[in-house]
Amino acid sequence: MTNYMLWNHEIIERTKDNAMISLEDRGYQFGDGVYEVIRIYDGRFHSLKWHLDRLDYSMRELGIQPPFDRSALIADLQALIEKNQFHDDGKLYLQVTRGLQPRDHVYQSDLDAIYYATIDRFDKPFQMWEQGVKVTLQEDIRWLRCDIKSLNLLGNVIAKTKAQSAGYYEPLLHRDGIIRECGASNFFMVQDGKLLTHPLNHLILGGMTRKKVLKLAGELNIEVEEKEFPVEALEDADECFLTATPLEVVPIVQIDQQSLPIGPITKKLQQYYRESVIKDLY
Amino acid sequence: MTNYMLWNHEIIERTKDNAMISLEDRGYQFGDGVYEVIRIYDGRFHSLKWHLDRLDYSMRELGIQPPFDRSALIADLQALIEKNQFHDDGKLYLQVTRGLQPRDHVYQSDLDAIYYATIDRFDKPFQMWEQGVKVTLQEDIRWLRCDIKSLNLLGNVIAKTKAQSAGYYEPLLHRDGIIRECGASNFFMVQDGKLLTHPLNHLILGGMTRKKVLKLAGELNIEVEEKEFPVEALEDADECFLTATPLEVVPIVQIDQQSLPIGPITKKLQQYYRESVIKDLY
Repeated sequence: MTNYMLWNHEIIERTKDNAMISLEDRGYQFGDGVYEVIRIYDGRFHSLKWHLDRLDYSMRELGIQPPFDRSALIADLQALIEKNQFHDDGKLYLQVTRGLQPRDHVYQSDLDAIYYATIDRFDKPFQMWEQGVKVTLQEDIRWLRCDIKSLNLLGNVIAKTKAQSAGYYEPLLHRDGIIRECGASNFFMVQDGKLLTHPLNHLILGGMTRKKVLKLAGELNIEVEEKEFPVEALEDADECFLTATPLEVVPIVQIDQQSLPIGPITKKLQQYYRESVIKDLY
Repeated sequence: MTNYMLWNHEIIERTKDNAMISLEDRGYQFGDGVYEVIRIYDGRFHSLKWHLDRLDYSMRELGIQPPFDRSALIADLQALIEKNQFHDDGKLYLQVTRGLQPRDHVYQSDLDAIYYATIDRFDKPFQMWEQGVKVTLQEDIRWLRCDIKSLNLLGNVIAKTKAQSAGYYEPLLHRDGIIRECGASNFFMVQDGKLLTHPLNHLILGGMTRKKVLKLAGELNIEVEEKEFPVEALEDADECFLTATPLEVVPIVQIDQQSLPIGPITKKLQQYYRESVIKDLY
């Protein structure tokens, strides 16, 4: 754990009692807030602009008043890195809640949003990259605004905990017979040399690694299609992988009873992603 | 505001800084918790056993380890009433979150749940009872476990705030063309002398006032059917009302452009509910 955190414009010591939340923080009573997890490599933020764009989107969609302007936030985040003398690989967790209000579903429009950010070490998951992970199909019971990166995460929490209890790394969520995404990652399938993934809409979170993988696939002349496909289409998958900010590109080697190879397109994208990281550090 | 609150088995002074939450309370980062709102009349709890049964259900469904046994909790809640010398009409808010854990979707099974309870004055809503309220149809975007009274309330928050901004008291939520419930209340329709409401399943919260109204309707020999009905059925409604713990039975006098009378069955149930309150006080 690092020694300092960002707490509403201030860098403070990260102790158990230093940053405490009121019971009437709407994040606590309603899950009324949003967040980002940003990857850090060698003490530098990856895809920072994309993440902050998505944070803006999440706040705008929920009508949360941003508690910072972007340039000040970026300066604060860099100061946080410096204060912690953080030069490793890690994750930044940045959370914004709507603010304090006596409990009422109906929110006031003029609340001062509350935010904090912490940095923790997170090493490159070499073993996952090499060996892949297993996933298990589950019905998607989340709400219909999965495009907002909100704190209403019980659907993901339940699904992911259940999957791991059964020996799988991630649930593979389907709704109305269509494959959507995993519990905390996006899902990709390769079929006949073509890369398929769910289109951006309200039923999935638009992952930053998803976005970058699609861009990189274009650079590698891999054919890409963003479209819905049914659960049954998995039977014809040649390769599958998942993408997530902390994990990058992780091969899927098993979906329930179905085994899958770690195929050439997965390997190529994984490798190219690794090489491309340096270009998007801030 | 009352002067004392219940905070993890202790009654403490209810000040801004006395009960504070850690950033790593799962309630804050995932909305990973449940709650109850219990009506208080003249300093006594209404339908207490039913509420604690539902709280048990919510905790069990989410795998949250109860932080109290029931008899100790009831003694604490009564001590809270006494310490506050609370003899008025009010609401108890009781919240349980899964506990503290470094942020991870996957929860540990052995966490110590965190809970608190506060009491606030809440007067009988005579004006609503007499004049009724307006509601507006909205698509239900919540998750598929609405039967759990969880802190993942953003769907309700958005719907109710939007409805009130447009001059309505509550949203009337529909999903797949079926009327489900309101933003923080259950919905009833009277048609040809029969009382209709959505059946208990994962798509609505099983309200305590809903349950009691169904019981009272039986005692009054009002025919009752718990069944799904489509949005179009509203056109044939003779009367409509909503039920909620703080509000009891509230007539609905308008659904978007459709006006509705405050009818005899609504009035009879509203009156009988009022008279029956005394029987279920603890």
